[in-house]
Amino acid sequence: MDKHGSKGQAMETNMGVDYVVHYKFTSVDKKDAAVQFEKLVSALGKVGLATEVRQGDRTSLLVFVKVASSEHLYGEIYRSRARDWIHGVQSSAPPKEMKEAIEKDPLTEAERLRIIHQLITNSEGDGGAGITPKEGQWKNVDSIFALHNHQYNKEWIKKWSTSYFLSAEDLDAIRNRLGERIAFYFAFTQSYFSFLLFPAVFGVSAYFLLGHFSPIYAIVNAFWCIIFTEYWKHQEVELAIRWGVRHVSQIENRRREFKHEKEIRDPVTGEMVTWFPVRKRLQRQLLQIPFAACVLVALGSLIATCFGIEIFISEIYNGPMKWLLVFLPTIIVSSFLPILTTIMTTIATQLTTYENYETEGAHETAMTQKIFVINFITSYLGIFLTAFVYVPFGSIVVPYLDVFSVTCQAFAEHEKQLTVSQDGFTINPDRLRKQVIYFTVTAQVVNLAMEVIVPYLKRRGFSKFRQFQNDRAARRGGALPEPSENDHPEEAVFLARVRNEAELDVYDVTTDLREMVLQFGYLSLFSVVWPLTGLSFVFNDWLELRADALKICVEMKRPTPARADTIGSWLDSLSFLTWVGSLTTSALVYMFSNDGLGPDGSPEAITGWKLLLAVMISEHAFLTVRWLVRVAISKLDSPGRQKERRERYAVRRKYIEESLEELSKKQGPVELAPDEEKIDRASLEEDARHAGESNVEDRFWARQRGWRETAQVGAGYIERGPSEDPKEKKIQ
Amino acid sequence: MDKHGSKGQAMETNMGVDYVVHYKFTSVDKKDAAVQFEKLVSALGKVGLATEVRQGDRTSLLVFVKVASSEHLYGEIYRSRARDWIHGVQSSAPPKEMKEAIEKDPLTEAERLRIIHQLITNSEGDGGAGITPKEGQWKNVDSIFALHNHQYNKEWIKKWSTSYFLSAEDLDAIRNRLGERIAFYFAFTQSYFSFLLFPAVFGVSAYFLLGHFSPIYAIVNAFWCIIFTEYWKHQEVELAIRWGVRHVSQIENRRREFKHEKEIRDPVTGEMVTWFPVRKRLQRQLLQIPFAACVLVALGSLIATCFGIEIFISEIYNGPMKWLLVFLPTIIVSSFLPILTTIMTTIATQLTTYENYETEGAHETAMTQKIFVINFITSYLGIFLTAFVYVPFGSIVVPYLDVFSVTCQAFAEHEKQLTVSQDGFTINPDRLRKQVIYFTVTAQVVNLAMEVIVPYLKRRGFSKFRQFQNDRAARRGGALPEPSENDHPEEAVFLARVRNEAELDVYDVTTDLREMVLQFGYLSLFSVVWPLTGLSFVFNDWLELRADALKICVEMKRPTPARADTIGSWLDSLSFLTWVGSLTTSALVYMFSNDGLGPDGSPEAITGWKLLLAVMISEHAFLTVRWLVRVAISKLDSPGRQKERRERYAVRRKYIEESLEELSKKQGPVELAPDEEKIDRASLEEDARHAGESNVEDRFWARQRGWRETAQVGAGYIERGPSEDPKEKKIQ
Repeated sequence: MDKHGSKGQAMETNMGVDYVVHYKFTSVDKKDAAVQFEKLVSALGKVGLATEVRQGDRTSLLVFVKVASSEHLYGEIYRSRARDWIHGVQSSAPPKEMKEAIEKDPLTEAERLRIIHQLITNSEGDGGAGITPKEGQWKNVDSIFALHNHQYNKEWIKKWSTSYFLSAEDLDAIRNRLGERIAFYFAFTQSYFSFLLFPAVFGVSAYFLLGHFSPIYAIVNAFWCIIFTEYWKHQEVELAIRWGVRHVSQIENRRREFKHEKEIRDPVTGEMVTWFPVRKRLQRQLLQIPFAACVLVALGSLIATCFGIEIFISEIYNGPMKWLLVFLPTIIVSSFLPILTTIMTTIATQLTTYENYETEGAHETAMTQKIFVINFITSYLGIFLTAFVYVPFGSIVVPYLDVFSVTCQAFAEHEKQLTVSQDGFTINPDRLRKQVIYFTVTAQVVNLAMEVIVPYLKRRGFSKFRQFQNDRAARRGGALPEPSENDHPEEAVFLARVRNEAELDVYDVTTDLREMVLQFGYLSLFSVVWPLTGLSFVFNDWLELRADALKICVEMKRPTPARADTIGSWLDSLSFLTWVGSLTTSALVYMFSNDGLGPDGSPEAITGWKLLLAVMISEHAFLTVRWLVRVAISKLDSPGRQKERRERYAVRRKYIEESLEELSKKQGPVELAPDEEKIDRASLEEDARHAGESNVEDRFWARQRGWRETAQVGAGYIERGPSEDPKEKKIQ
Repeated sequence: MDKHGSKGQAMETNMGVDYVVHYKFTSVDKKDAAVQFEKLVSALGKVGLATEVRQGDRTSLLVFVKVASSEHLYGEIYRSRARDWIHGVQSSAPPKEMKEAIEKDPLTEAERLRIIHQLITNSEGDGGAGITPKEGQWKNVDSIFALHNHQYNKEWIKKWSTSYFLSAEDLDAIRNRLGERIAFYFAFTQSYFSFLLFPAVFGVSAYFLLGHFSPIYAIVNAFWCIIFTEYWKHQEVELAIRWGVRHVSQIENRRREFKHEKEIRDPVTGEMVTWFPVRKRLQRQLLQIPFAACVLVALGSLIATCFGIEIFISEIYNGPMKWLLVFLPTIIVSSFLPILTTIMTTIATQLTTYENYETEGAHETAMTQKIFVINFITSYLGIFLTAFVYVPFGSIVVPYLDVFSVTCQAFAEHEKQLTVSQDGFTINPDRLRKQVIYFTVTAQVVNLAMEVIVPYLKRRGFSKFRQFQNDRAARRGGALPEPSENDHPEEAVFLARVRNEAELDVYDVTTDLREMVLQFGYLSLFSVVWPLTGLSFVFNDWLELRADALKICVEMKRPTPARADTIGSWLDSLSFLTWVGSLTTSALVYMFSNDGLGPDGSPEAITGWKLLLAVMISEHAFLTVRWLVRVAISKLDSPGRQKERRERYAVRRKYIEESLEELSKKQGPVELAPDEEKIDRASLEEDARHAGESNVEDRFWARQRGWRETAQVGAGYIERGPSEDPKEKKIQ
């Protein structure tokens, strides 16, 4: 941001560029690169895009792309909207006249960029240029990105940093600029932040009035978690309707990597589609079970080992250098955990690819689930070990920890320092609380800082490295002139900015979503240990929302708008964490409610059946309450849902009124019919009554003419009916 | 059925009658009755129905009704179908031309009768005659019923009684004749019967190979319950689509008894609608909690008391008359339980009415839930007491049962006969099994017999009573002539039959559904006690299906067809029973697996935490498996669902193709556009390049003309790029 201010107005124009294609080449494949480059611009040109090329850095080109004719763009937009309607995303059809359709529902920046991006990346069969960065014939295409609107970004950050809450309009603005997928993340975090105010305030009161492990806090907190999760489900639908993207996740974007076994005819559309047997996929999905076991064993044993070492050093070891040695487990975890996580994530990616999903959505869901399993273990296992192994079984387990004496044997002066002291081992009741505070305060702050600072350092380092390279080349005398030296003066500032943006990372919204969901997990699972958790999160999340906005604006390429109607399978993770919360919280309350020493003053007094009973009751109460909350929330109507129903109703109403009008014209008023008929049929019936040739049914219906005669005959029957005295009648 | 055969052909004609209105009057209100009768036939005439009146019994009239003009009926049918489409029941709109619409989708008997019934009973505002039997001004109208088609019924019963399975066509036939609501009951029972074959066969094998309380049987049985419940959910949707009634339960039939607080404008349709505050209803619904408690206490204490008495008499008492006294509790239960159940059902009805639901559907759901609570207690509490009170706590509880000594004090010869024998009390391990056999065999057979025989006896008794009355009147000399004496000879047989049908009861399908659901409960909850349960049910249900068909044909009035797209909230009851089954079965297996004597040979060895752990594991396994089964079944596609999607797709596709054709006419082929444009723009751009007055953006885009120039310029950049040796490049 610093240098932008000085260059003034020139910063503001993006030259009408819609997308920039970053084309990299190496010094060895120049001929090839030139041929492929021609293919690239020709493909872009053929789908109606205007192109301009400029030099990027020494070995890359920047191809600027914009839509050549707005007529063409409108055609694409109309096609996209019509497709939405066919698949049920829109409840009313777009007007048949294209211009009218665009005017009725004006184009947002995000929709424009999304459609142009589709034009560039869609396969040729779907009417696109079929450009797939870094793949196949397009391996030289490094990235395709839109340009930041710096002026807008500046105002955005400024506005946000001075407001406490984001309004619905703020979220709409994000949606209009960055697309629904990112807008859903901000909407979710904002919603979560607003909800957090309650546990923050209640948590502070509970901390001072109720103390730790208060059953009241546990119940209120569980209730809050249920309401938040269920409310968000409701809110999500509402937002999807507001943004016109409901059911958009059902429009299936086929994965390019999908490998089909044969082609079959789609029973719905009648088109030929590629197909992969479901049973085969199911078999491959079964591999998830050994995968989950692997993750648990690999990450679990690392965490458990470090946990053991830490306890050994902090609780048993009492030799020299203890102050330094206590950091040992942290160092081991910090260095090995990221490596293991990366390995596991790679395996997860391969496994998901092997499962061979047909659509992007299904692939992403499967991947998200695996990522959640990995993160669940890395985030919560440490606390689980403390709460459910160290405390209840500490006195049994700890003596065996002398296997870890190897870690500090070098420093110990004599054996005694490596064994449990004669007084016997006592459990440190404060360990659990400290650990929760670490995860909910320290780790959150560190994490937030990392998110902002690391990319900054990375950029700085990268630019330093390039400087160094240039200097070295200059010293050798082989230095080529800086590409920027050839820039047209009036484009120089603009090109410098684009070169800068081309080097930025791509923003991935799932990372941020995961962070929020895992944070929610601490609240749901362990906040009963330390009720100030909510308060800490309120501060953290206010900053988080702003830091994310800053990150998107400054440290990342402008994200390509994508649509979504949900935060995806993270929602299932939220439900799952709420459920597990009902188990852990009740167990923690039962075990620690007497200030960390179990119900009877010592952890040994924890009895199995009471613990299990507490957990069972809590779980069933949770399920019942969740069911009730769901029923109550399903009763909530909302403007969006009403609008949707109204539109659908109006379309059909109109159609039916047209047909009914025709109908009533033909039929005439209903009331007159019987009388008219009576007059018409009178003579006929008179005949029929005397004609022996008509059948029994006709004669049956001809005995009384019209309802007046029926009434008379009936009155006659009633008159001739029994007329006993009232007493007699009652018996009957 | 007996006398029908003799009268031959005359039985077969229903005289083209659509409905019969049974009008009753008393001897005291003759004048009033005649006036009201005129109103009745006039109301019927005004909605286009032809009427004929004949005498019923001495104090009633039979009004025969048929549609006067088929044109009018078609109009009504078209309106009904159009309404279906507006509310989303049909995915494609009915053709605008009425005749075409009727021909495309021919009219079934059930649809015809349903629509005529609506014509008679709908309010005048909705275009009906507004006749509400037994209410308000129509209090003399006893019933409105269609006539049986005896010839058809005979063939139906004959066909069914000689076939093992019902085919999809058999179910379609029921749907076409009796409507979807009853067809859904038969479809459910048929589906359940087919599924039962597995537990029947497996149960027999388990009985001989695995013995009682086998964990393997328990697991397989739970799995079967889950699959059946989830499969039925899937099947239900499929049937609803097949029968064209999907979402029909969302067409809200407003309850006539609904009391509104104010009128508001419906946000969807814009019409004024009556409204009752949701919060107020919620408050009233809270009364369900004390109601459920009441039911539990009232029924529970009766059942528990009789249980106590039974145990006292059979296990403690050893005086004279024991063989007779053991029947005492059965007699108490048999006489008091129906009374209490009736009282509770009355309270439930009043409570449901007080909750003031707007729609028939919501009212029925609320009522069904209450009925289920009552039935759950009466059906299963006895076995629960044996399994979870008598066996584990028997030795503690039984000595206190001497309070029941009062029941047989009169027969006892000395005190000893009323106290626990010196040998101490031992639990009777066979009691549980005997009880389960009683409920799953004896009670089922008795129930089935009652269903068929009781109505028959009732009819016989009623006709005897009338005979007796007539005779008495004849003896007094005041006997009026039998109404049948005035019948026209050619109508006599027909009228006799109608008089007979007018006296029959109304068929209520929920009673039969409830029976099936409760039967499923025994299988899910307790069949591990006696694995032959499934076998017993297979026989019972084969008969049940036929008995129900017979009942509908012979012992009940012909049911008025009604639509439904589900078996309603009984489905929730099924899910609930499956869930509870996972708890009871695991507990039973743990407690009794060592032949009814607990894990270590004596019930005292049952440990709390092991029991709870078994139940918890079982419950979570159940929830996981259910989730997996749901996912798997949701993946199943089906012809019906495909048809629905195909229709929706076709409608939209057609619309969009029309608009896209217009679009492409205007636009011309996309591929040519850039080249054409290039030629057109060439001179303009040349100008722009030299004109200083154009702005920076225009100049930016004018530097390269078309993609060919971009390609050339790009190739130039690549050419001038760094050309170091490959080794150097790699470092870079």
